[in-house]
Amino acid sequence: MEMTPYKSKTNAQTVIALDAMGGDFAPDEVVLGAASVASPSLKILLVGHAAEIERSLAQADPGCRRYVEIVVASEVIGFDEEPTKAVRTKKDSSLVVACREVSEGRADGVVSAGNTGAILAAAMLNLKRIRGLKRPGLCAVLPTPNKPTIFIDVGANSTVRPLHLLEFANMASIFAQDVLDVRDPSVGLLSIGEESIKGDELVLEAHRLMAESSFLNFYGNVEGGDIVRNVVDVVVTDGFTGNVSLKLMESTSSLIVEQVKKAAMRSFSARIGGLLLKKELGVFKKSIDTEEFSGAYLLGVRGLAVVCHGNSSRKSIGSALKIAALASEQRLISKLEERIAAMQAAE
Amino acid sequence: MEMTPYKSKTNAQTVIALDAMGGDFAPDEVVLGAASVASPSLKILLVGHAAEIERSLAQADPGCRRYVEIVVASEVIGFDEEPTKAVRTKKDSSLVVACREVSEGRADGVVSAGNTGAILAAAMLNLKRIRGLKRPGLCAVLPTPNKPTIFIDVGANSTVRPLHLLEFANMASIFAQDVLDVRDPSVGLLSIGEESIKGDELVLEAHRLMAESSFLNFYGNVEGGDIVRNVVDVVVTDGFTGNVSLKLMESTSSLIVEQVKKAAMRSFSARIGGLLLKKELGVFKKSIDTEEFSGAYLLGVRGLAVVCHGNSSRKSIGSALKIAALASEQRLISKLEERIAAMQAAE
Repeated sequence: MEMTPYKSKTNAQTVIALDAMGGDFAPDEVVLGAASVASPSLKILLVGHAAEIERSLAQADPGCRRYVEIVVASEVIGFDEEPTKAVRTKKDSSLVVACREVSEGRADGVVSAGNTGAILAAAMLNLKRIRGLKRPGLCAVLPTPNKPTIFIDVGANSTVRPLHLLEFANMASIFAQDVLDVRDPSVGLLSIGEESIKGDELVLEAHRLMAESSFLNFYGNVEGGDIVRNVVDVVVTDGFTGNVSLKLMESTSSLIVEQVKKAAMRSFSARIGGLLLKKELGVFKKSIDTEEFSGAYLLGVRGLAVVCHGNSSRKSIGSALKIAALASEQRLISKLEERIAAMQAAE
Repeated sequence: MEMTPYKSKTNAQTVIALDAMGGDFAPDEVVLGAASVASPSLKILLVGHAAEIERSLAQADPGCRRYVEIVVASEVIGFDEEPTKAVRTKKDSSLVVACREVSEGRADGVVSAGNTGAILAAAMLNLKRIRGLKRPGLCAVLPTPNKPTIFIDVGANSTVRPLHLLEFANMASIFAQDVLDVRDPSVGLLSIGEESIKGDELVLEAHRLMAESSFLNFYGNVEGGDIVRNVVDVVVTDGFTGNVSLKLMESTSSLIVEQVKKAAMRSFSARIGGLLLKKELGVFKKSIDTEEFSGAYLLGVRGLAVVCHGNSSRKSIGSALKIAALASEQRLISKLEERIAAMQAAE
């Protein structure tokens, strides 16, 4: 699918700060992703080295110029840098400057395909945590058939405590209700068996906390296969299991799509068959296309942040910018703050 | 694919004890799975209620009778029973009796689709651990394209220590070499980033142990997506992450295959296309067919044990019996014992 410019449902203009230097294919793919979706309702701040960004922009439709603006940052945080240290010392890095655009009110959200740990650190430092929450979690919206599945945490916290899993469940439920319009979203806890006695100590205790919660529509444990089977609206896990699962799912899907394509090249009749199937498979491919759902929301900080894969293509960056704009229009962060404050007042 | 009777490469007769009462579709599917592969080179002991097994056997080709034998056991361990307690109290359960057939030398291996925890407990109790090993691990052979990937632990230990991961790596390497003929198998440690500094404390320490090992061909960390990408021969993880990953992978594959089938029904031309592609897709489907690779080897005990999914079909049971026979012919357990003893002598 070609990216089309973003169109607001509300006529508002959203401003997103994009870390133009973050990602394996930055700045070219990142800048071209921005150029493909920038529009009267979505202005994009391209943060990074001006000359490099200009060079990338020269490849884009000049019409996008009206909707993008370069914000200069002289440093870049690499993938191999220690996150917290990098964020503290490189105050003029594209990532930190982009976060500052949000914390200082010049942008409604930030998008980055850079070092995930550094994005988390920069967001925690610049945007701060939502009051009453211990840990932010990375929340992905999986393109599962029939309806999307919300999956949290896909990599913010490799080690968590049971309370953190409860927080993830709460945040993702609010997200499901307020951004995706899911009524009374059901929440499953990822484990190695459906029975409540299955799992490690972390899961057993988190299960107890979730079952006791009056806020959650808790389904109980779900297993690995249930993630893609629409068993629940929200699947909760730690950032280690979530990260492994997300990458595995993406890899398995794209591998199988490749295999189907290969099968369709193997003989003349298969080739004709492939051509005849192409249109219908296109519909299907779109429903599992990970490039269409390439950003994960960092929930739990007081500002909108969307984290992309390091290897994001322009199309992925474009989708991430769009989902950031959508969440901004739907006032995701203030709704999260209000709902969490209300939950805590009720306790 | 239809199951064909097992054929030995060596003319030996292998005897496998099958827990006929274990599994969601036991005894029918289990017994019929046995009937489909029993042969002059593979004798199967059907362990459980004689009358129920007879009733299931009545649906099979009477020719199989010569290669199966009923071993009576009066009890059954259910999926919701506490494993260790069930194994200790139900000494005449089909599972425990089947394990005893192995420990007392009447069978070369045991296969069960029952309660996984109970299978582990029964194997530990009856077959005992291999000397010098702390924890057995469940080892699956994934049907990845180009060549199989060995994945350990897929569910025996939901909580592990770094040393256990090292043991899993050693056992799976020996398995790869001695059973699958992989030369100097490369081993990857599953984590959330390739760099050695990525992961939780368990992974960081296990990484160090594996890197120091003179026995392993250690590749370093691998990520979720690498499991299916032939990046390494062996992928090592804890039983929680491994179990979630295995189930997710199976579910994602079968979901996509379903979607392709649906796409091929959506219009007349797509239907023709689907028919033309069918043969080639069949080849592909076989390469990812989880029913063909439905058993996981329990490595680390002094007897051959293959664990199947609870929901195993007759085809899955048939494959599991075949892989058990294959491992028995290749003397998997004695090779593991010898190699581990040699490793320990060298240390």
